[in-house]
Amino acid sequence: MALLRRALGDTLRGQRQRQERTLREVSSAARVSLGYLSEVERGQKEASSELLSAICDALEVQLSEVLQEATESLRASELAVDAAPAGAFGKVVIPPPSDSGDSKRMVSASPAA
Amino acid sequence: MALLRRALGDTLRGQRQRQERTLREVSSAARVSLGYLSEVERGQKEASSELLSAICDALEVQLSEVLQEATESLRASELAVDAAPAGAFGKVVIPPPSDSGDSKRMVSASPAA
Repeated sequence: MALLRRALGDTLRGQRQRQERTLREVSSAARVSLGYLSEVERGQKEASSELLSAICDALEVQLSEVLQEATESLRASELAVDAAPAGAFGKVVIPPPSDSGDSKRMVSASPAA
Repeated sequence: MALLRRALGDTLRGQRQRQERTLREVSSAARVSLGYLSEVERGQKEASSELLSAICDALEVQLSEVLQEATESLRASELAVDAAPAGAFGKVVIPPPSDSGDSKRMVSASPAA
C-alpha cells in the first residue's frame, strides 16, 4: 500500500540531501530530535502537521512544494500498482469449477446482492 | 499557519459531500468510528497514513487525488499569506517623503512597468 508518510519521508530526505545538509543541522533548525527526523525521513513515524511545517521551514521550502513532490511520487506508485500483472496486486479471477461429470450440482459463487 | 491536516480534512469532507454520502456511510466503509472521521474532516485529528488510505478507499478516490487537492489548497493559503497587506504579514514598504513645495509635478498614477 502506498503510504503518505513514506512519500513524505522520501521527499524530505531528498530535499535535505540536495541541500547537502546533515540530519543534525536540519533537526536542530526545526527543533526536533535527530532520531525523530530520521524516523520521519525513513517513513517510520507520522509527523504531526505542526512538525511537518517546522521541518519545511528548516529546509526553507514551502509545505505545498514538499506535498507536490510527495503527491507525484504516490501517483507513480499507484500507476505502478494499476499496471502490475494480475496475481501480483490485481484482482484475482477465479475460474469456474471444471465440470467433473458425476456431479449435477453447480458450485456457484454467486455475487452478493 | 497552513496545516496539512486541515487541508486534508477539507478535501475529504468535500469529496464526501460531492458524493452526497453521510459521515456514517463513509466511516462504516472505512471501518473507522464516525467521531474519528468527523474530527479528521474538521482538521482536529491527524489521520495516520493507513487510516487516510482506508478513508480514500471508502470514498473510491486515489490518495494522490486527495493529496493533489490538498496541495492546491495549501498553495493558495501560502500565496494569500505572501500577498497579505503590509502590517498583516507582508513586507512594510515605507513611501518616500512627499515633495511638499507647491508642485509643478502632475500627480500621476502611472501603472507599474
